Amino acid sequence: MTTYNVESANIKLEDLPDWNFENNGIEKKFEFKNFSQALGFIVQVGVLAEKANHHPELYNVYNKVNIRLTTHDADGVTDKDFNLATNIEKLF
Amino acid sequence: MTTYNVESANIKLEDLPDWNFENNGIEKKFEFKNFSQALGFIVQVGVLAEKANHHPELYNVYNKVNIRLTTHDADGVTDKDFNLATNIEKLF
Repeated sequence: MTTYNVESANIKLEDLPDWNFENNGIEKKFEFKNFSQALGFIVQVGVLAEKANHHPELYNVYNKVNIRLTTHDADGVTDKDFNLATNIEKLF
Repeated sequence: MTTYNVESANIKLEDLPDWNFENNGIEKKFEFKNFSQALGFIVQVGVLAEKANHHPELYNVYNKVNIRLTTHDADGVTDKDFNLATNIEKLF
């Protein structure tokens, strides 16, 4: 699998608002009205992740959810990460 | 709200296997068979948290879920945290 460096990743990230390349992963911080909405989002992301067999790192506290995507097998960011990020954005 | 220090917390933690006092919070690392089971656990914890109006910090990657409980208003560990941890343990 081809991995992206910061320059090539940033070109792909132009289509993914508020996603950033950090430490060989792509990350976004989401904020919701309340915990219930954050939990709903986590479940939706989980369903997408299972479908893709590609899973995020996820951090949640109350109404905030941070998602980090990286491809562990490839030791970097691959199209799997961009595809999942694109599908996550379609949830909104 | 009374907060617990490491000594008083450790007495309470005797009833909560694998929970540890760390940085003014109590934490446990859970491991599941797969992501689907981890996601199910996250949802169950979320429902308990909403009922209690007390929310964990939660970190998930694939089959692993780390839960950290602290009472932000009290700037430390309170009975709210021990009660939620006790209810989480009852899920198993």
